Amino acid sequence: MSLWRDYAPELVTDLYEFTMAASYLKEGMSGEATFSLFVREYPENRAYFVSAGLEQLIDTICALRFSEESINYLSSLHKFAQEFLEALRRYRFTGTIRAIPEGRIFFCQEPLLEVTAPIFEAQIIETLAMNVLQTETLLTSKAARCIQAARGKPLVDFGLRRTQGVDAGVKAARAGYLVGFAGTSNLLAGKLYDIPVFGTMAHSYVTSFPHEMDSFLAFVRAFPENTVLLIDTYDTLRGAEKALEVARILEAEGRRLMAVRLDSGDLCSLSKEVRRIFRKGGYPGIQIMASGSLDEYRIEQLLAGGAEIDSFAVGTRVVVSADAPYLDMAYKLTEYDGRPILKLSRGKTTWVGRKQAYRRYDAGGRMIEDVLGTAGADREEGEPLLEEVMKGGERVRPPETLREIRARFAREWETLPLPCRKTVAPKLYPVQIAPALARLQEETVRMRLREEVGQNS
Amino acid sequence: MSLWRDYAPELVTDLYEFTMAASYLKEGMSGEATFSLFVREYPENRAYFVSAGLEQLIDTICALRFSEESINYLSSLHKFAQEFLEALRRYRFTGTIRAIPEGRIFFCQEPLLEVTAPIFEAQIIETLAMNVLQTETLLTSKAARCIQAARGKPLVDFGLRRTQGVDAGVKAARAGYLVGFAGTSNLLAGKLYDIPVFGTMAHSYVTSFPHEMDSFLAFVRAFPENTVLLIDTYDTLRGAEKALEVARILEAEGRRLMAVRLDSGDLCSLSKEVRRIFRKGGYPGIQIMASGSLDEYRIEQLLAGGAEIDSFAVGTRVVVSADAPYLDMAYKLTEYDGRPILKLSRGKTTWVGRKQAYRRYDAGGRMIEDVLGTAGADREEGEPLLEEVMKGGERVRPPETLREIRARFAREWETLPLPCRKTVAPKLYPVQIAPALARLQEETVRMRLREEVGQNS
Repeated sequence: MSLWRDYAPELVTDLYEFTMAASYLKEGMSGEATFSLFVREYPENRAYFVSAGLEQLIDTICALRFSEESINYLSSLHKFAQEFLEALRRYRFTGTIRAIPEGRIFFCQEPLLEVTAPIFEAQIIETLAMNVLQTETLLTSKAARCIQAARGKPLVDFGLRRTQGVDAGVKAARAGYLVGFAGTSNLLAGKLYDIPVFGTMAHSYVTSFPHEMDSFLAFVRAFPENTVLLIDTYDTLRGAEKALEVARILEAEGRRLMAVRLDSGDLCSLSKEVRRIFRKGGYPGIQIMASGSLDEYRIEQLLAGGAEIDSFAVGTRVVVSADAPYLDMAYKLTEYDGRPILKLSRGKTTWVGRKQAYRRYDAGGRMIEDVLGTAGADREEGEPLLEEVMKGGERVRPPETLREIRARFAREWETLPLPCRKTVAPKLYPVQIAPALARLQEETVRMRLREEVGQNS
Repeated sequence: MSLWRDYAPELVTDLYEFTMAASYLKEGMSGEATFSLFVREYPENRAYFVSAGLEQLIDTICALRFSEESINYLSSLHKFAQEFLEALRRYRFTGTIRAIPEGRIFFCQEPLLEVTAPIFEAQIIETLAMNVLQTETLLTSKAARCIQAARGKPLVDFGLRRTQGVDAGVKAARAGYLVGFAGTSNLLAGKLYDIPVFGTMAHSYVTSFPHEMDSFLAFVRAFPENTVLLIDTYDTLRGAEKALEVARILEAEGRRLMAVRLDSGDLCSLSKEVRRIFRKGGYPGIQIMASGSLDEYRIEQLLAGGAEIDSFAVGTRVVVSADAPYLDMAYKLTEYDGRPILKLSRGKTTWVGRKQAYRRYDAGGRMIEDVLGTAGADREEGEPLLEEVMKGGERVRPPETLREIRARFAREWETLPLPCRKTVAPKLYPVQIAPALARLQEETVRMRLREEVGQNS
């Protein structure tokens, strides 16, 4: 049975990328193509996205080669000519990639990525680019919503057991840390991205001892520092009283009990009662951590209800982005051989040509509006969001660390207007279309309607 | 930046598995534990699950070792004693695993997996087991719903670009094939699991040519056999007329056009109009394939509306299980050192002890009810679902191929009552609790309430 370690990146591809590429090769179509990757529509309750996944994508594209094993597999399908398999053997991405750096905020219709390369090369990376950027942008944008809801209280990712596969598990942990979570329970992500790791005990631990108190005492014997006791296994309030006892025992040894965790029941009222027990017992400073089906909606409710919760561990609903588990992301050909390209389709607009997104700020440095324009046109007023990240198939700048990206997000976040950040019914942020782009679009639509549909306007 | 190939399986773990294990070691707790993995509640519109993921899990557990690199990372956290790190260095899973084989139908509360091993060993694999089984069972159960909706028409998975990461992409393709899809667009899954691969062209291909007709002709030059033309790039009905022309050209060469694909618009009415064009043009046999935001609900609607669609390609909504993107799966300690174990928790029942699920059939071989009982008790009437798959840390039978599992599912599926298979508001299937298990549960609850909560009943 195959494990993720066997996943050859060059085969993270839909078959049709290769049938199309084979036809381009046969037809001698070596012209330069630009593909634009963008999100078409906001999922419910969303009004922004956080760019994420670019660094992994660039690394993967730089290293993309076809192993003999992969070529042999493709050959075994009896669909491809030797000439095409040879072209795959020689495959190197030689093009240019412009993209919105990770940790920046972006909006619908704005290209997160534009790939310009011989069409053969640019077509082949479509599925890979979409999978990587979609997953990370989806999960990072979801995590940012939790940051908004938690009002500065620490968040930790506990989601690995419920992510859709192991790759998503690593990406979800990275997503949380990117937007400002304190850390993750995920050791693999902790190691790969140098993210602080958190975690103490599960109910199974508590129940494996004859009595709850035995488990608490055993745990502090093993981990006397920064101890968090899980107190809801049998009865949360009795658990809180036992935690008080542990705090007293620790104090006698010159230590202190850091926190307890509540994982079930009515977290709002239980947290208040637990706090009362701790205050009454003389330990008002024992922190209360909450977990259990939390997401941005629930966190907001808890804080609005005055819950006495100091930090939140989020899992399932956040790491699968349960209320919006995918983005309507597209990778569309917008220019080929100097010709602007589009598909005519009801309700789905793809803006033609190479593009740039420009951002305008008010005097206080807060975002006002973005403008979507053609990349070659006169520079619009505003800050260009897409930067060249690859040229001639190579990185034009060193890889960014997760910490750098996290710092960028923290700055960017402050500039996003509060109404756009709302968890429910956020305000849409204005993205204008530059007049030159609008004209090019209109001309191209008119030409396509005339030539393909026989309509004269 | 890290790629999935760097994902060390031994670190696919939440930190707390290791803090708990370190404490077990320190306390000398070497007793045998049984952990039971099950789904607590059905998501909306679900009344069954399809077991999947077991073969990968067993392979991973058999091979699970801690590399020096992973040990060094854990050591760098300054949380663990040398003794514990040494125990990880020596780690081998030596226990027993009983499980419901892949491709079988199971229900809430029934253990999909029971792990019996020294508690240290069994605790450490929790996160890994949950991630693997949750993902595959979730996606396979979703795919089965599409099989039900499609009424025998072929289904193909086109979802790789929208899965939550690459691991989920491979698992989604495997899930589809397991329940009877014709194949997948995913080349990686095609190679790893020997799944037939499908796919022809995208809109980008059509638009890269000066005219739609040029693209169709170029495609048949490269792939004259089994050609599928995508006809909705500019105008679906004009596209259908062009496809007719291609069919005539192919016929003159002694070939035939296999199919067209519709990917947008009102698929029901468009498919009927396209069929009319093909009939009128003398080619009623050109197949019509549909794609674009399809899932079991949409497929059911289309077929109910009389859509002239011969096959369906499903993507996004199916491969992320959009209407239910996670399962409420738990891995609970149910026995330690011969002692039945449970957690007292409102609304969340965990059945104590080692268990077995038994299935009863009517004379026609259709499932009537399951019985959840203790594994050690007198054998209940009915077919036991959990089989021993590992003993002494080794497989007790050879790995099963995906084709074998697919055949098992096909047989099993026929025995599941139709009302349970309904896409919307399915009938719940009865799972009885055996009297001996109910008694043991009651006694254990009473003891825990007395000892931990101070309640006398």
